[in-house]
Amino acid sequence: MLVTDLIRRKRDGVELQRNEIEFLVNGYTRDEIPDYQISSWLMAVLLRGMTRAELAALTETMLNSGQVLDFSELDAAKTDKHSTGGVGDKTSLIITPIVAAGGLYVPMISGRGLGHTGGTLDKLESIPGFRVELTTDEFLQQVREVGLAIIGQSANLVPADKLLYGLRDVTATVDNVSLIAASIMSKKIAAGADAIVLDVKVGDGAFMKTVEDARELARMMLELGRHAGREVVCVLTDMDQPLGYAVGNALEIRETIATLRGEGPPDFTELVLAASAHLLALSDLEIGQEQGRDRAAAAVQDGTALATYERWIAAQGGDPREAALQTAPEVRQVLAPTKGFVRSIGATAVGMAALRLGAGRQTKDDAIDHAVGIRCLMKRGDAVEAGEVLAEVHARDDESAKLAEAEVLEAYELADEAPAARPIVLETIA
Amino acid sequence: MLVTDLIRRKRDGVELQRNEIEFLVNGYTRDEIPDYQISSWLMAVLLRGMTRAELAALTETMLNSGQVLDFSELDAAKTDKHSTGGVGDKTSLIITPIVAAGGLYVPMISGRGLGHTGGTLDKLESIPGFRVELTTDEFLQQVREVGLAIIGQSANLVPADKLLYGLRDVTATVDNVSLIAASIMSKKIAAGADAIVLDVKVGDGAFMKTVEDARELARMMLELGRHAGREVVCVLTDMDQPLGYAVGNALEIRETIATLRGEGPPDFTELVLAASAHLLALSDLEIGQEQGRDRAAAAVQDGTALATYERWIAAQGGDPREAALQTAPEVRQVLAPTKGFVRSIGATAVGMAALRLGAGRQTKDDAIDHAVGIRCLMKRGDAVEAGEVLAEVHARDDESAKLAEAEVLEAYELADEAPAARPIVLETIA
Repeated sequence: MLVTDLIRRKRDGVELQRNEIEFLVNGYTRDEIPDYQISSWLMAVLLRGMTRAELAALTETMLNSGQVLDFSELDAAKTDKHSTGGVGDKTSLIITPIVAAGGLYVPMISGRGLGHTGGTLDKLESIPGFRVELTTDEFLQQVREVGLAIIGQSANLVPADKLLYGLRDVTATVDNVSLIAASIMSKKIAAGADAIVLDVKVGDGAFMKTVEDARELARMMLELGRHAGREVVCVLTDMDQPLGYAVGNALEIRETIATLRGEGPPDFTELVLAASAHLLALSDLEIGQEQGRDRAAAAVQDGTALATYERWIAAQGGDPREAALQTAPEVRQVLAPTKGFVRSIGATAVGMAALRLGAGRQTKDDAIDHAVGIRCLMKRGDAVEAGEVLAEVHARDDESAKLAEAEVLEAYELADEAPAARPIVLETIA
Repeated sequence: MLVTDLIRRKRDGVELQRNEIEFLVNGYTRDEIPDYQISSWLMAVLLRGMTRAELAALTETMLNSGQVLDFSELDAAKTDKHSTGGVGDKTSLIITPIVAAGGLYVPMISGRGLGHTGGTLDKLESIPGFRVELTTDEFLQQVREVGLAIIGQSANLVPADKLLYGLRDVTATVDNVSLIAASIMSKKIAAGADAIVLDVKVGDGAFMKTVEDARELARMMLELGRHAGREVVCVLTDMDQPLGYAVGNALEIRETIATLRGEGPPDFTELVLAASAHLLALSDLEIGQEQGRDRAAAAVQDGTALATYERWIAAQGGDPREAALQTAPEVRQVLAPTKGFVRSIGATAVGMAALRLGAGRQTKDDAIDHAVGIRCLMKRGDAVEAGEVLAEVHARDDESAKLAEAEVLEAYELADEAPAARPIVLETIA
């Protein structure tokens, strides 16, 4: 089999066979096919698309490139959740202790942020002492004992994805629904969950800008999950404005704790309850969506969700107390220049402002400043008076605070009339 | 400037600016941008195409990546000729001494064969002692004294093309008219000729399979040449059957000598005279196409073309005598199985048969057997009797001779009626 023939055929719109896709992906993973041939093939895939059969073959080849975790010894359903990434998205940190408190196991493998979107691992690392790297044995044991664990992708879990993602990132071949679906689903299936909720973000701050694109990605992932025998539900959720108030690592952990206490932002709390309800209903607890939601709300109410959170953080070496988190030396208020209603808050703009404050990384090797970030206290639809606080900038110094203040002000659009209400969960696809 | 941004924009169909193309090509030539980013960009270019402005920028950036030769001191026009490659195409070897005998200078930089197509340098190397590598000074001096020289591309002439071509060859990004046009014209302009004849091959054995594609390539190259202040004529010529009789290195040199003596195959002689006439008419001799053709014919008739050939070969260290050429130990005749007319001879099939005999190379590192090849004695339109000789196979041994015999027989299509006549020069674009 000649690599150039396979690239040429894909380039010319011909469907590749399963064994041909295996040849390319396994050859690359074993370092037998060079980067420059795979990047050429990826660009051809991006521009020509993939058939359903090609996508299934790619996902399974990636899945089988490494270890596939097995939790069959556990006595309750193993659940997982994935978000396609956004601004202020700390959902995983709250859902996991809620559903673990509800009686499920949550073995989660998560990622880091890049560009304007944050990453769950980066947020967890703002907790002093927290370890995101566990051995597979430690991971399995913690899930068994505490009910949940969130760790980084180890080298032997879907190594093909690690390599391909690294290459896609530097060759402008990231934003293709098939490649995104294969990357997400190979990891989620390898991580061993029986039931998975996929949160596909839609809007300005998300990879998917339109509901149509998000729907296409959701359907592909649903099909791949079911093909592998997993229960899957997709929720399409709003990412036109930042999620909740906080954007930035330690700020988002504070908001996580507040939400687990029942004191979270309304939009965010709604998403947490909806997604938790799906996971509880998908599992083997034999309860419906509504009962799932009640059980999630009860776990917040009676403190078991927060207690589970604390047990989990401590199990991974972290200090779960809010007081242990870093604070930024400079806090600057962003004031409304006029009276009006918040019509929109550009999620990408807020994400980029947080990135420039140091909350994210522009290249893979950048260090993160866990203390800094932004809190968008006024959200879409809120009425404000001139001079009222729209947001807070948490910065390392005065200069960067001023810069971020201007950027956040620019991200806010005020209008004379309130915008039409938009629910946080736009659509559920099951 | 971020490489991924430029790839992304090309991928999304946005035109790149001149400085952006310079950034990519110069960065790659200086080894500052890795292979895998350029191959991704090349695939995007292949699938999205290039605008005229992008193509001009690419060609000029490649041209300026190395030395540009200057022959302005010479007292007559400097001419050059390029063929897009085919089977049995030894045209350059005959045209160059003809037009040099006619009073022009021909500084030619040529290439090697790959796949089923032969290369001028490989053919020349079947002449004992012939050196295809001269220093720039030796090259200039020989053109000045003998009137012509044909050499290989030196490292400092269009180094960007050398690198890009090598990468395209292994990433399925060769066959795109813009990339082909930029590669050819950057080299032809750098080689310093004032007048250039471009022979665009069309048909089964050529890269351009249709007249439409050939026309597009021809027009692009004409525009690039004129933009650089060069006189250019394109001839679209037939490559559905091998050109002349001989396919294979020493065999083609023999046919070169025969043609210079006025004893060449009719189709091939016609192409040689037509292309020579264009070059003579394009130059500063102030003669027209018809006079150019007369002068070319006269140079063959009176022996000055052959004498110039011998002077040239000797100047580059070669032995110009036909007797000095290698012969293959096995010559096997391919006989007509039935009576009929030759309807077609698959040029690619004959080229591949010659390649497998050892006349070409499958990978860049293969060695060439200069003695072997095929002579297609019966050409399209010829009437043959059953048992008459269609072709000769010149082979290293009996086994490979038999294999090639079967392949050549398969390439010949006989029919009851003579096919419609097809001229060798299909179209002239000036």
